[in-house]
Amino acid sequence: MTATPGATLRMVRERKPLVHQITNYVVMNETANATLALGALPVMAHAREEVEEMVRLASALVINIGTLSPHWVDAMLLAGKAANEADIPVVLDPVGAGATTYRTETARRILREVDVAALRGNAGEIATLAGVEAEVRGVESIGAGGEPADLARAAARSLDLVASVTGPVDHVSDGRRVLVVANGHELLAAVSGTGCMSSAITGCFLAVKAGEPLVAAAEALAAFGVAGEDAVRGAKGPGTFHANLYDALAALDPNTLDARAKISEA
Amino acid sequence: MTATPGATLRMVRERKPLVHQITNYVVMNETANATLALGALPVMAHAREEVEEMVRLASALVINIGTLSPHWVDAMLLAGKAANEADIPVVLDPVGAGATTYRTETARRILREVDVAALRGNAGEIATLAGVEAEVRGVESIGAGGEPADLARAAARSLDLVASVTGPVDHVSDGRRVLVVANGHELLAAVSGTGCMSSAITGCFLAVKAGEPLVAAAEALAAFGVAGEDAVRGAKGPGTFHANLYDALAALDPNTLDARAKISEA
Amino acid sequence: MTATPGATLRMVRERKPLVHQITNYVVMNETANATLALGALPVMAHAREEVEEMVRLASALVINIGTLSPHWVDAMLLAGKAANEADIPVVLDPVGAGATTYRTETARRILREVDVAALRGNAGEIATLAGVEAEVRGVESIGAGGEPADLARAAARSLDLVASVTGPVDHVSDGRRVLVVANGHELLAAVSGTGCMSSAITGCFLAVKAGEPLVAAAEALAAFGVAGEDAVRGAKGPGTFHANLYDALAALDPNTLDARAKISEA
Repeated sequence: MTATPGATLRMVRERKPLVHQITNYVVMNETANATLALGALPVMAHAREEVEEMVRLASALVINIGTLSPHWVDAMLLAGKAANEADIPVVLDPVGAGATTYRTETARRILREVDVAALRGNAGEIATLAGVEAEVRGVESIGAGGEPADLARAAARSLDLVASVTGPVDHVSDGRRVLVVANGHELLAAVSGTGCMSSAITGCFLAVKAGEPLVAAAEALAAFGVAGEDAVRGAKGPGTFHANLYDALAALDPNTLDARAKISEA
Repeated sequence: MTATPGATLRMVRERKPLVHQITNYVVMNETANATLALGALPVMAHAREEVEEMVRLASALVINIGTLSPHWVDAMLLAGKAANEADIPVVLDPVGAGATTYRTETARRILREVDVAALRGNAGEIATLAGVEAEVRGVESIGAGGEPADLARAAARSLDLVASVTGPVDHVSDGRRVLVVANGHELLAAVSGTGCMSSAITGCFLAVKAGEPLVAAAEALAAFGVAGEDAVRGAKGPGTFHANLYDALAALDPNTLDARAKISEA
Repeated sequence: MTATPGATLRMVRERKPLVHQITNYVVMNETANATLALGALPVMAHAREEVEEMVRLASALVINIGTLSPHWVDAMLLAGKAANEADIPVVLDPVGAGATTYRTETARRILREVDVAALRGNAGEIATLAGVEAEVRGVESIGAGGEPADLARAAARSLDLVASVTGPVDHVSDGRRVLVVANGHELLAAVSGTGCMSSAITGCFLAVKAGEPLVAAAEALAAFGVAGEDAVRGAKGPGTFHANLYDALAALDPNTLDARAKISEA
């Protein structure tokens, strides 16, 4: 259970897993391109008429409630249940949970009806779902009570999954261990959808390492963070950084990734 | 009522207002990133189940009919009315009004049922809604009768709001005064969604200066235009210009913005 | 019937045809910007309430089923029939046909109910619709039996349209002739939506050359491929290549395009 992000990235590129994403309108192009740049294959499909069939072709399902509406929620539930039946790992990104009742209730409903392998969100979103006090403003976490390591552990325990609480430093827990990921760059917070991208990358890593969701989720955040560090080179702001980010994901070197990944045990 | 875009931009960055956007699929990522680069917080939410709750958390609402359909129009109306009740300024971008009956009627309906603070569109769209003769081709304004200053004033008077008629030179009126904004660059017209971005930025400025919508709307267009001027540096065409535009919005200097803004009284 | 992509591009830029696109959420911004960069005018509209009126204003209709759902399919059929009545050429991009029953059946239904001028897809998608054996993985073609030239001819014959089978080398057929287009660059496959962009560009070329769909479709792919070749300059990966691609489309030189286009008869 030691983190070896380089080896996992190599597996992603060799197997090119199909990652089915039911995500929000804002970031659909961005998460598709991040998935592709990393070396996996994205597919977006949200119609109730096809999500069950599509997810069975995939190696992971990423559900993101960033711009949810009833038809989409229905499809998320159908796809999630079909993924569970076929033992395909499910990642949930509860964008904006805590901001509106509809988002909070929908995230809770998905967690209740679908066996989610990994939950990736900011502190406010995760705290909301773990029943810990939090302040969410729109889709931004403003403050969530307590230490993120404790929050990740508490969420993992109460929801029985791997919880990834991302922020300047990321905390990933399965309820027992907590892995701390210290990669990344502040410009990631200046681009809309980088959180959603990290959920998509989490799906890519779980697709090839479903048996070790804690380690895979931490490795995914480290890989994405290292790409963020590389994307700063030559960037003059959030726009050029954003373009560079896909270059950096595609250029991620499996041979140096283990050394560059700052993953430690809390 | 003198324009001080630098001071207003400083307020945006200090307060980081949440700007709720119910906008079109084509530009959702782009307006979110423009909002974030400027220094405000975007949130996209369009379900009838949550728009009223979400807009009450926001400091401005931007409605954009670029890819409208009945469910979305319902949500626009619900959100707009909730914004009105909570005294949150509403910006309307009537994309394609004049091109199809559905767009024209929907824009008119929103204007009838919601108290819109600022209407931002091209000459063809604004002329259509002001009842002035115009030619609209798809979502492009081909020609609209008369001078844009007169059009802005006439639209502002007949619709009782601030009208921003954008083009090579922008004209903003509250029905009495007309402010002329001469910033910008022709490459802005080569990128899809820059008009929608200028509506989003208008929302950001109104969010912190709701009491002076005429000046705030003109300041927003000046700030966006100055960013467009800066984005040309190093651009080799519309793609690199587009990436640079977010860099330029993030790098906008409040200290020099007043001097660079070309805002004059018509 | 000799290919003259330079002259056709010049016509696109002079006439600036409106190209109505009912496409998927993932690529909407990308195909709009590609259309605009080339020199045509994109318009996205998908509501049943307006698609017939909108398409009658356009010079071509591009239907793309990448993120389909029932309301959108209804609109595609309505728009397609209205385009047929008004003699406006229709391009179909059957994204993911072969991956799910819903996609395959929808693509077949559109082909049955709408007179499609050009069908643009990868080998797996086209083979599925032509009734040839194929393997499709999500929205990627993994393998399709036989030579692409034969596939293009067979699809064109059985479906009575121009079939564009794109890949490292593109094959375009009207059932009799097969044109081979050898432009492009492998980085095009590293960016999500470049296939969809090539369908949009096909729509732009058919908009001004509807009477010669075979040649126009091949010219479009050559022009897009040449832009891809140019976009490599200065690119460090898929992200900067993607930004450069719009620059390259805007900078395409009609005077050198004929010489650079690698279009040959199979």
